[in-house]
Amino acid sequence: MFGARVFCFFSLNDMEGDRTVAKDKEYLFIPGPTPVPPQVMTAMTKPIIGHRSGEFSRLYRDLVKKMQKVYQTENDLFILSNSGTGAMEMALANTVNPGEKVLSLVTGHFAQRFNRIATVLGADVDTLDFPWGGPVDLDMVENKLRQENYRAVLVTHNETSTGVINDLAALGQLTAQTDALLLVDAVSSLGGADIKTDEYQLDLVVTSSQKALMLPPGLAAISVSSKAWERVEKCKARTVYFSLADYRQLIAKGHTPWTPAVGLLYGLEAALDMILAEGLEEVFRRHQRLAQAVRAGMRALGLKVVAPEECASPTVTAVWAPEGVNPDELRRFLREELGVYMSGGKGSLAGKVFRFGHMGYVGEFDIITGLAAVEMGLAKLGRGVQLGAGVAAAQELLLHTLGKGGRKG
Amino acid sequence: MFGARVFCFFSLNDMEGDRTVAKDKEYLFIPGPTPVPPQVMTAMTKPIIGHRSGEFSRLYRDLVKKMQKVYQTENDLFILSNSGTGAMEMALANTVNPGEKVLSLVTGHFAQRFNRIATVLGADVDTLDFPWGGPVDLDMVENKLRQENYRAVLVTHNETSTGVINDLAALGQLTAQTDALLLVDAVSSLGGADIKTDEYQLDLVVTSSQKALMLPPGLAAISVSSKAWERVEKCKARTVYFSLADYRQLIAKGHTPWTPAVGLLYGLEAALDMILAEGLEEVFRRHQRLAQAVRAGMRALGLKVVAPEECASPTVTAVWAPEGVNPDELRRFLREELGVYMSGGKGSLAGKVFRFGHMGYVGEFDIITGLAAVEMGLAKLGRGVQLGAGVAAAQELLLHTLGKGGRKG
Repeated sequence: MFGARVFCFFSLNDMEGDRTVAKDKEYLFIPGPTPVPPQVMTAMTKPIIGHRSGEFSRLYRDLVKKMQKVYQTENDLFILSNSGTGAMEMALANTVNPGEKVLSLVTGHFAQRFNRIATVLGADVDTLDFPWGGPVDLDMVENKLRQENYRAVLVTHNETSTGVINDLAALGQLTAQTDALLLVDAVSSLGGADIKTDEYQLDLVVTSSQKALMLPPGLAAISVSSKAWERVEKCKARTVYFSLADYRQLIAKGHTPWTPAVGLLYGLEAALDMILAEGLEEVFRRHQRLAQAVRAGMRALGLKVVAPEECASPTVTAVWAPEGVNPDELRRFLREELGVYMSGGKGSLAGKVFRFGHMGYVGEFDIITGLAAVEMGLAKLGRGVQLGAGVAAAQELLLHTLGKGGRKG
Repeated sequence: MFGARVFCFFSLNDMEGDRTVAKDKEYLFIPGPTPVPPQVMTAMTKPIIGHRSGEFSRLYRDLVKKMQKVYQTENDLFILSNSGTGAMEMALANTVNPGEKVLSLVTGHFAQRFNRIATVLGADVDTLDFPWGGPVDLDMVENKLRQENYRAVLVTHNETSTGVINDLAALGQLTAQTDALLLVDAVSSLGGADIKTDEYQLDLVVTSSQKALMLPPGLAAISVSSKAWERVEKCKARTVYFSLADYRQLIAKGHTPWTPAVGLLYGLEAALDMILAEGLEEVFRRHQRLAQAVRAGMRALGLKVVAPEECASPTVTAVWAPEGVNPDELRRFLREELGVYMSGGKGSLAGKVFRFGHMGYVGEFDIITGLAAVEMGLAKLGRGVQLGAGVAAAQELLLHTLGKGGRKG
């Protein structure tokens, strides 16, 4: 086997050594932070302006309009200077009082985080646990919504720990028939997957900057439906930094309540301009196409993708490590010898899977690179992998879909 | 055949369309300009200083010291604000008077340029034409040097049009036994190939910034041996901008005679720091290793490399287009559909070869990307190419040489 044949060339000592030009070329395939386009980096170097200036108000209003397009919403939308977790807390703290019932739909690690925030904020949390690697079971949700009167339903749209995407249209329809608000964690999907916030009747949708939006970490966003605003007015605010009322009040005057991350907002402007220039449909098609290429490549290598094809995420793919391969050893080899960064398993999937992020500033040859690296890693770890086989499957799919979600749309 | 199978999916209309994120990701595999590292780009954004300041003098002197290390020389060295062609003219205009005999060794398009400059400057040019795709024949050079008394021998170290590298050590030894100066065009090799300027007794060595030195175009450099200086003093200067005497005189005072490209010099500082941090030996080994991977990949695809293995360039590879494939059609597909830029044939090789540059800021996955793109292009053009086969050959070589010229040296 090739893998066995090369094993003798490899020793842990190979991993020491100075920084080199080759070493300087690193490839970020973790599911966020994701690569930042040079023009976004450049935009962030513009001189910082005061956030109580008219210039800032114009920038912020313009950003909200552009972000609403990506959200596909006319709801109020706020751009926040905190991470996505803060936006999740904001969604809950402004709409659910302590002791009020919420339904938490858990399909993986990040849904558990949403669940934990609700618990810490004192909500009476009803948890529906679904098997990791699958989507939310809509029938079970429907039954629960019939049985109980919930204030809110919490869902993670794209479960980054399993690479599974949930059906927001169906969940929106189910929840809209009740008094409950639908709170959506779209951190790892917004900007990479089609989210029709208004059409799907999504009440609060949160995302963050370092995923499909192609920015460094530090920004988040939240959209608020009119149904959500009614609840906010009835809700006892238990937060200052995350007060939606304060945001609404000050944004009306053209300012954020607290000091915003101005440099990152410059970057957001450049990133949103790139997304809107490509066109949302095209951006979503590109993500679908590249994700299909990743899965085709993994299958060709005999590897099993965690998510079934029908609910596979367009932004991140979790892959079962083959028998006898420690995915973290594979990742260490990719990182230390090839400068390729992929993520490991979370929670119950720790030590069992590796995760390949492919959202935001990604093109065909990022997929080729990631697959080639995985092949080399498996070969190095002594697996009988056919070098080039995964790449070939991806190439074939990419060639078949040229001009269909490809570079020229 | 796969290529034929996908042909129906493709039409020229696919080539129109808006700029997209994927389109934004382009891959420069032309043999210069080459990709510029982000830290070099960043360095060039520093505030521009006056070039008659002490700060500039310190910068320039520091750059000369670092460049001398890359040149492996203690000769005088000047960093010039012009392209490599200007540096070639500088080398000739300061050392050869009109009517004086020079020996021009021509192995391709760029050697012809050196030859043309000598002719235009009025030298009596004796041309040795060697078959394109091969190196200089040292015996023929030795005979010529015995028969005639030349002022200078002109050689292109690395012939970018054919991907052939010449033996500078041997040429230096032959020329040193005569009154002739050896003028070396090292534009596409210096910083990527081992050039021991002093040990090889090279009199004037010129290079430029946009090749293995990882900078944008705009800078060049020239080293001047003591033997060359003797000639410069006897030579009737016929240039102002390129006057070596002026450079020597003003650099002694810490300034350049004419306005230098200060921003590019900031970039040069960052690039030289990267090269010296990696270590010259390691940089040369990396270039050799990646070039071998390119050739292994091309061979695995059934393609023929123009240069014989023993004189194959570490920085650029010229490849014969397979029967029935127009290399320029292949390049157009790579460019317009995949955002991958390779070069075509020059002079007598026009329409017959394509050229894959791999110098400077290049790592393993640049090679994988370039080979995968060529595979996809050949498939698209209806060639019965086995997708992934070239990539696999490169992967195997790269795996076998990990830690031997790899990321960890």
